[in-house]
Formats: sequence, structure tokens, C-alpha cells
Amino acid sequence: MQIEDMILVSVDDVVVEPPDVFVGRVPKKYEDLAPKLIVKDDGTEAWEYLGNLSQSVGLNAVVGRPPEDYGLEPAAFSDMRPGCYDVDERVRDMNANGVLGSLCFPTVPGFVGELFGRQAAAGNGDLAIAMLRGYNDWHIDGWCGKYPGRFIPLAIPPIWSPELMGEEVRRVARKGCHAITFADNPGNLGFPSLHSEKWDPFWKACADEGTVVCIHIGSGTRMNLQDPGAPIEVMIAGTPITLFNCATELVFSDIFNKFPTLKIALSEGGIGWIPYFLERIDYVHEHHHRWTLHGFPSGKKPSDVFREHIITCFIDDAAGVRNRDLIGIDNITWECDYPHSDSTWPTAPEVLWKSLAGVPDEDIHKMTWKNTTKHFSYDPFKHIPKEGCTVAALRAQAKDVDLTPRVGAGGKSPSDYAKGYATVGDIIQQMAGAFSTAFETKPGGAR
Amino acid sequence: MQIEDMILVSVDDVVVEPPDVFVGRVPKKYEDLAPKLIVKDDGTEAWEYLGNLSQSVGLNAVVGRPPEDYGLEPAAFSDMRPGCYDVDERVRDMNANGVLGSLCFPTVPGFVGELFGRQAAAGNGDLAIAMLRGYNDWHIDGWCGKYPGRFIPLAIPPIWSPELMGEEVRRVARKGCHAITFADNPGNLGFPSLHSEKWDPFWKACADEGTVVCIHIGSGTRMNLQDPGAPIEVMIAGTPITLFNCATELVFSDIFNKFPTLKIALSEGGIGWIPYFLERIDYVHEHHHRWTLHGFPSGKKPSDVFREHIITCFIDDAAGVRNRDLIGIDNITWECDYPHSDSTWPTAPEVLWKSLAGVPDEDIHKMTWKNTTKHFSYDPFKHIPKEGCTVAALRAQAKDVDLTPRVGAGGKSPSDYAKGYATVGDIIQQMAGAFSTAFETKPGGAR
Repeated sequence: MQIEDMILVSVDDVVVEPPDVFVGRVPKKYEDLAPKLIVKDDGTEAWEYLGNLSQSVGLNAVVGRPPEDYGLEPAAFSDMRPGCYDVDERVRDMNANGVLGSLCFPTVPGFVGELFGRQAAAGNGDLAIAMLRGYNDWHIDGWCGKYPGRFIPLAIPPIWSPELMGEEVRRVARKGCHAITFADNPGNLGFPSLHSEKWDPFWKACADEGTVVCIHIGSGTRMNLQDPGAPIEVMIAGTPITLFNCATELVFSDIFNKFPTLKIALSEGGIGWIPYFLERIDYVHEHHHRWTLHGFPSGKKPSDVFREHIITCFIDDAAGVRNRDLIGIDNITWECDYPHSDSTWPTAPEVLWKSLAGVPDEDIHKMTWKNTTKHFSYDPFKHIPKEGCTVAALRAQAKDVDLTPRVGAGGKSPSDYAKGYATVGDIIQQMAGAFSTAFETKPGGAR
Repeated sequence: MQIEDMILVSVDDVVVEPPDVFVGRVPKKYEDLAPKLIVKDDGTEAWEYLGNLSQSVGLNAVVGRPPEDYGLEPAAFSDMRPGCYDVDERVRDMNANGVLGSLCFPTVPGFVGELFGRQAAAGNGDLAIAMLRGYNDWHIDGWCGKYPGRFIPLAIPPIWSPELMGEEVRRVARKGCHAITFADNPGNLGFPSLHSEKWDPFWKACADEGTVVCIHIGSGTRMNLQDPGAPIEVMIAGTPITLFNCATELVFSDIFNKFPTLKIALSEGGIGWIPYFLERIDYVHEHHHRWTLHGFPSGKKPSDVFREHIITCFIDDAAGVRNRDLIGIDNITWECDYPHSDSTWPTAPEVLWKSLAGVPDEDIHKMTWKNTTKHFSYDPFKHIPKEGCTVAALRAQAKDVDLTPRVGAGGKSPSDYAKGYATVGDIIQQMAGAFSTAFETKPGGAR
């Protein structure tokens, strides 16, 4: 097998929502209340919703910019590569990167629809569910639907109501969507603990419908910002491993006993730490269960429970690939993280290939697409002949895609920082500044 | 090489301080003010210091109890195996376990002497340093000194003053002590951030004296108690990996640039996650340094910095041993964790041997004793002929040690817990109860 023969499906990319997300997708009576893109006095753009500014349009959407120019600062649409928000351009960028399929996480509503959750908590549940359904319909029909076989649709949940979550899981399943987001630590967002029975209607619907629950890093546990004096690398390096805790909570929870067909994906969690994790949870169970009185009724080990229910993924993780036998070869999937700064676009095949040296073809196929099609009820070959799905075939369609790095609004010099480099404190300050700028409600945006 | 030929040196055990720690070791004028062991109304024991109850005498000191009987609850001395607090019995227990050498962390003063730090912060620095020196003298002369060659002495720092820390490093080095504790996140304890230049006098003294800085799990970052509904296994399984963050902070800090001979040990951190960690920090550096402007003046990669300066250790970690080439074979050491509940006593050699299947002799020697003797300036063979240091030779001296499990005060039934098993919330409640019980100042304790 050669690099160009790979078939690549990414289980973690991001969509930056275009300005027309809600147009024609919410009931007439709520049209004026839908989130709107506005331009602030400083020229940057933001979403305005019920009088509040929501998450920036392009937070960390730096794909295609030179690395000198990365940053966490918000950008305008004109600073971004169009593939961030335009689905035609996105598919062209996927082709240029040899990537067949993509599962895209949201930006504006938050990983688990917190934007609508806050408002529902404030009393207007009817408006909130209307907006959320409108968003999911746009994602499924407007974004994924335009290119059959190229996307794995991913819904966001009405996180404020497990009953509504169950209903939404079933509603979107009827539209062919079998993945939905959830938080690694919902208690931290003000919702019930992961161990609460209140979530049962949600778990049940997902188990019934074969819907994968996708738990993304940063979806509940806050980023590691504890030390303002630390270089920002400390936060970036440590974020994926925050899912270690969630993985432990899931394995030791009662959830899989109650819903034995449920599958949960740890999105952007990496895989290199999993061999250690599995050994550790088995050790802890074996050493402690006689006094904690916690058991697995089936007589299984914690690592068995993990391998039965948890789907892992990686961007570039040679240690994880080396130890794939310890992780479970049937549960490893691959991701690209377009358009965030950890992404390997547009050389994802080349970067990945280095980690795959010496790996048998069948293991490569499992990790790069087979496991994903199996777990996510995703069948690209229904729409595209298999020979058109390889790195080589896709890249052949993308010869006109301009890969030249585009200089954006980012880029700092050492004198911009007290220590000469970006610290956690510097980035916190940048973010706070971005959200406190005065703005005028000039509707529209840059497109 | 056979199991009985191994030489085992443990870089992480714990001493439960006996009642006479401070007797004769503090200036006359402060004798009455020294911490004293008292018996509470409920029969449990605690240390009383300046009107406050300090940490329990035997928190989690469960070695030699049947696993049904473990727990985090405080115990009385009579509930503990004498090897917890009696050095003669400790050495007999080490012999029975085939362990030659041991580095012992403190219990009562806290990992970094917080007990004295709080009081110094309240204004009485003179008393605090007198108590701290008394403690270190007891540890070095009273505990380790009685059995030359069997212990690696470990001091605690006057954490409230980096200048005093530097002085204490030099003072104990003159007594042959080349290890000292520090916190993984001093900022979390109310002291300056790890990245503060204020610590420089401490780092400098350690670098000058060849003193290893030992950073133990739980020494700054709090235990993971975020979800009261979670089974207690979540906390236990996730605690070692909390050092992932500290390791990242250390590598990206300016500390090793300034003090190139400094060595830092991650105590009880495990090793199986390190291959992933090293790959991750190199990836983050490579992907982000052009915009963060953070560099390594020497042109080294973050993983090089780690391998030059950081000492790792493990209890039982097959995935880590398998990937020792990725970690760095010269920096892996072994630990026993006596007398805590994660310990493998009294079958440490047998448990370890399973992880060592197929490992060349020289790699075994490096991990089980050679690296430790090199990094910690520890030369047991000056005192004990090498042939007397093996598992077989030590166990031969311990035929009369009673290894029968001793039933203590722990042990619960499912009806003791709302969920039928111990949750984080249950344990928090137990701990709070233990510290709020009324007590009478009956001096002495059970010995």
C-alpha cells in the first residue's frame, strides 16, 4: 500500500458558521430573534443573539495562514480561508488534502449548544429549541446535504433538557444523522453530573438509534489556564489529555450497564495515553474494588468496558499507533482538525504516513476509514465509487486549489509580550479584549 | 537474570511520623510548641500544632491490611502495620519485600512542609524554620541514619521563603541529603507560580549541590474531586496523570535554561503516558512556536529538555516498560509506595517481574537501581556488599516477618453508601468528619 492509496475520513473538523445559518430555518415568528452576524467598530465580526455577543466567528480558524500568524484571537471572515465557512470551498480543501469524509463540530453555538442552553435556563425554552432545531437542520441539510458521501452529520443537543435531547436524537436520526455532541463534564456547565440518572432519556435514545455521542475536548472541563505566567504551550499541550478524566468517569459509571449498545467518541483526545490509561484503570479496579465495593456486574475488567464502548481518535500520534494492540485496533479513528491550529492540512496524508511505517494495510484501513464507517453508520461508497475515494483520486480533482499561505491579521513580535513570548495571561487578556470592544449592529458580515 | 537477582530501590515510599519526631530536635524555648500527637474522643489520633489539628496520623496507611479493609479514613497507630512508623520494622518489611533502598515522603507536615508554611505566612517564621529543621534532622539522622545504605534521605523545604529554601538545601547537603520536595503547582498553595523568578535561589542551591527536586502527586494540584457523584476510582485513577501538566510547565519554563544541571523527579507519576507526552510537546512546539515566539535557546526540542532533566518512576506499568526507548531508559526509576493502598508490598518483585518479561538485564538494572543511585547520589554498596542487596539476600533475612493481613478499623458494606459503592462525595464526607470530631489533648499516642 502506498500513501496515495489511503482513504481518509476525519472524525473531528470544525465548521465556522456562515451568516445565513438561520435564514429560512426557524419559525417565522422567531426570525427576527435568530442570531445575526454583526460587524464591530474595530472591523472584527461577531454573532449577536438576544442582545449578547456570542463566540467569535473564527476563533483559532487559522488554517492556510503561515504559522507566524496563528493565534487565538478572533478574526473576520475576510481573514479566514473560505473553506472554513463555505461548503463548496471546504470540499475543495478536503480534496486538496486527500480527505474523503469529515465530521464537523460547531463554533458559534458552542460544542453542546450552550448558546441556546443559557437562554433556555433563563426561561425561554420554546425559542431555544426552535433555534437549535434550525441549527441542526442547517448543519444536516445545508452543510452536509450538499455533498452526499462527504460528511458525517453531527447534531448539537438541547442540553438543558434530557427529554428534549432524546427527542432530538430521534428526530435527526430520521434525517440520517447518527452523531451528537455532549460535554465531558456537564456538571461544570451547570447541568447534572455525568453520573446523574437524569441523562438516561438521552443515553437511551442514542443507544436505540445507533447514535454516537461525541465528547470533544474543551466541552465541559475548562482549558488549563491555571497559571497566567505559563507559556501558552502549557495550555495547548495539556488540553487533549483532559479527556483522561472523562474516560475514567465513563468506564466506572453505570451508563454502559444500562445501555449496553451505547458508543461514545472522545474527540481530539489523542490515543498515545490510552495504553497507560487502560492499565491504570484495571490496576485501580483490581487494587481497590474490595473496599470501594464498586463492581462490573458482567465480571468484565474496566479496559474491556472501554474497548466495547469508547471510540478514540488521533491527528498524529506515533506512540499510539505503535501500541494500537493495547488500545484496541477496532476503535481507533483518525482526525484532521481543520481549520484549527493543530491541523495537519494540507499535508495530512504525508504527516500521517510517517506514523504508519510498518503498519499492515488492514490496520491502516481500520484506523483511517473502516472503523469510522462502522461506528458512525457512514457509507460513502453509496454515493462515490470506492476508487474515487483515495488520496490520489481526490487530489486529482483539486489541482486548481490555491495552497499559498494567506497572511491574516495575527502575528506578534517579542516586544508585544512582557516575557518575550505568549503566556496564558497574555492570551486571556487578548480574549477578554475581543469580547469587551464596543460594537455597532451593522448586519451582514463580510460575505 | 532471575527475579531473585534483582536489586530494588524505591524512590517513593511514605513515612508515618512516630510521636517522638520533634523530641530533642528543636530549640529548648520552642519545645512546648512542637507538634504533639493527641488522642481524640473517638479513639483516633491526630497531631495538634498551635491549636490546630493537622493531617491524620495514618491517612491511607493501609499496607498489610486485607483489601476489603482499605480506605482513606484516618487510623490510629494501633491500626497500622508498625513498619509505617517504626524504622526497625520498616527495614524488616523492606527485607520481606526484597527492597534494598527507600526514599520516604512525609505525612504530617504535608509534602512540602505546608504545616510550617501556613504558620510562617502568619508571621512566626523563626518558630517555623526551627520546627522544619528539627523535622529534617529527625528524618535524616533519626529515620534514615539508623540504617546506613537503606534509605535515600529526603528533606522538606521552608516553602514560604526561597532564600531559606536555598540555605536548607545547602545545610542538609552537608549532612548527605541530596533530595528535597517541591510542589507541582506552588501557585495553587498560595505561593508564587512555578514560572516566578522568586524560586531561583532554591533552584540554584539544588543545581549547585546535585540535589534532586522531588515533586509528588497531590503536592499542589488538588485531587480530582470535581464530581461528588463519581465512584472514588475516578479520583484514584486520575491522580498520577495530574503530573502531566507539571511536566509541561517544567519543560517550557525558563528554569532549565538558567540552571542546566538541575534534576527534577516526578514522584508517583507513572511512566506509561510519557511517550505520548513527549510526542505531544514536540508537536505543540513545532506547530506553534512561530506565533507564540517561545523557543529553546539551545535549539533543543522539548523532549530533549525533558530527558536531560526529568526523572520518572513507576510502580507497575507494562506499557511504560514496553516503550522505555521512547521515554529514555536512563531516567526511569522504580517505586513501591509503601504503605499506601497502591503499593505492591509484600510481592513487589513478583508484580514487577511480570512487566519485565523480555527486558534485557542492563535495562532492568537501570530501572530498578542504577538510575536511582546515579541521580540521587546514593551509594548503598559503600555500606552493604552488593551480593547482600538482592531480592534473595534481603528476603533471606526476613523469614520471621509476619505477612498475615491484619484487620483494621476500615471496611464498609454496600448499605453504608447511597449508591452501594464509595463515591467521591462519600469520601469527602468521611474526611470532613474525621477533622471535625471533638478532641481532648491527651498527649502521647499508642506507642
